[in-house]
Amino acid sequence: MKCSYCNREAVYYQRYSGKHLCRKHFTDFFEKKIRTVVKKYKMIETGDRIAIALSGGKDSTTLTKVLLELYGDRRDLEFLAITIDEGIEGYREKTLKIAKEITRSVGIEHYIASFEDNFSAKLDEIVKVGEKLPCSYCGVFRKYLLNKSARELSANKLATAHNLDDESQTILMNFINADIDRLARLIPQRDQEGLIRRIKPFMELYEKEIVTYGFLKGYPMIFDECPYSYFPVRAFVRDFIYELERKYPGRKISILRSLEKLAESLRITNPQIELSKCKICNEPTSQDLCQACKLVNELENKISIEHNEKLSLIKI
Amino acid sequence: MKCSYCNREAVYYQRYSGKHLCRKHFTDFFEKKIRTVVKKYKMIETGDRIAIALSGGKDSTTLTKVLLELYGDRRDLEFLAITIDEGIEGYREKTLKIAKEITRSVGIEHYIASFEDNFSAKLDEIVKVGEKLPCSYCGVFRKYLLNKSARELSANKLATAHNLDDESQTILMNFINADIDRLARLIPQRDQEGLIRRIKPFMELYEKEIVTYGFLKGYPMIFDECPYSYFPVRAFVRDFIYELERKYPGRKISILRSLEKLAESLRITNPQIELSKCKICNEPTSQDLCQACKLVNELENKISIEHNEKLSLIKI
Repeated sequence: MKCSYCNREAVYYQRYSGKHLCRKHFTDFFEKKIRTVVKKYKMIETGDRIAIALSGGKDSTTLTKVLLELYGDRRDLEFLAITIDEGIEGYREKTLKIAKEITRSVGIEHYIASFEDNFSAKLDEIVKVGEKLPCSYCGVFRKYLLNKSARELSANKLATAHNLDDESQTILMNFINADIDRLARLIPQRDQEGLIRRIKPFMELYEKEIVTYGFLKGYPMIFDECPYSYFPVRAFVRDFIYELERKYPGRKISILRSLEKLAESLRITNPQIELSKCKICNEPTSQDLCQACKLVNELENKISIEHNEKLSLIKI
Repeated sequence: MKCSYCNREAVYYQRYSGKHLCRKHFTDFFEKKIRTVVKKYKMIETGDRIAIALSGGKDSTTLTKVLLELYGDRRDLEFLAITIDEGIEGYREKTLKIAKEITRSVGIEHYIASFEDNFSAKLDEIVKVGEKLPCSYCGVFRKYLLNKSARELSANKLATAHNLDDESQTILMNFINADIDRLARLIPQRDQEGLIRRIKPFMELYEKEIVTYGFLKGYPMIFDECPYSYFPVRAFVRDFIYELERKYPGRKISILRSLEKLAESLRITNPQIELSKCKICNEPTSQDLCQACKLVNELENKISIEHNEKLSLIKI
């Protein structure tokens, strides 16, 4: 099949646009989409020091590479990478290795924050005694460490590799569950003290597009799924959206547009809560204690978990 | 299985509440739910003259019966029924017969407005030449005749039998399609000249509950589907919600709650458009011509369809 724009062989069929794209035109499309989204949401601005949440999986690897490719030459910007080591044997080692290779290849600072150094327990230990699902602990601790690390490293933005598939699933899940508060938190928020603004340059790109771009560029692509990953509702919604998109291409984007159109109203009904500081660790929270400290409290009698006062970050 | 409230045999298992209900407690639940919803949205108020849109199918038959059962004794209220005869051979005759039986049994006025008398063409003829899907014509003409008839008959409310299944499908479809304007139109609107306020007393009741109630009461229940019915997207969304509800009971209600939670802000961001009058037929519309007149114009060269100036209503 020929490219819809030139005479070259197509490498990608973009179902929702009906376009066949060759390597050059696919790459152009992909990079232009990032530039457009970055501009639209003012994700990258002069003077920014941007921390990239780099797990070493396919999406964050591609994010790191492409951000440096597109914006790495700008002298008014700084980039660094943060990797969270949750302590998952047989899983994280592989991606950690890739993550190191990636930051070395693009030449940016790279820091690792581990659950073990910062909460005195690996996820492998936590899940043995915790009564919640593994993701409930991991999600809270990972976000906590990413935000705290980015701040301590003087970053003012935190880039994550969430893509259109992730976003449309999250939006639809929250809508179905009538969780309008969570829905509201997905729209761009004003800056609050202690909270590093998160940016998602991939939010309008299909997972398939990211994977294709990564392959075309020859990036190391790891597809392993976390052994603890268990999201039954999300999986159900994901399958529905997958079928929906297959039958009616473009639905993932239109779910995202729904949220955008609702953004203004959500700002009225669900104004951002003024954050205070956690009474234990001083991190920003809407309650007395932050979620991480609550979980640490819950777990500390069961294992010798504790919240290390000083953030432990390893520069590699 | 015993009823969760008494010693009688259960006739219905309400999955989302985990309750088994006997005939009495199911009936109590059903009628109480209607009273609650009617009160919550001020659907029925002193002095109302309520036109019931009665097709003669299972839902509208049950609606007519139960509204008269619950509110028929109130001397400050009046009820009447309107049936639209679209002109669908082999389908509408059956339900028309039931509709007549029902209004006779509850003793209310009953009017029939037909496509043939009011647009000089049956749906069977329209679909032969029309380029749109049958439902596109039928939906517009039916709503048009219901509103106009209700108004000419001095009704101030129009009750339809839309249930929770219908509502949750419509809400989710609009959300997925990023059609926030249509989503906004699902929330209760302020009255506008010429437009009869529509009320949906079944909006929080599952289709299954309506059918069960109808059976228990011995109402004539027709399940026939219109031969022209073709809603591929809706069917797809319906199947998804069905599976979702099966796995995570209560989701239909929570989709409805999502819209309710958004209602206040949607009123601000998507205010109701001021209606004007159709330049041809004087019926309320947001544009120069109403949808019905546009469709009539589109069809009139192909068949001898016309918009009869005077509404033709047959009292039976």
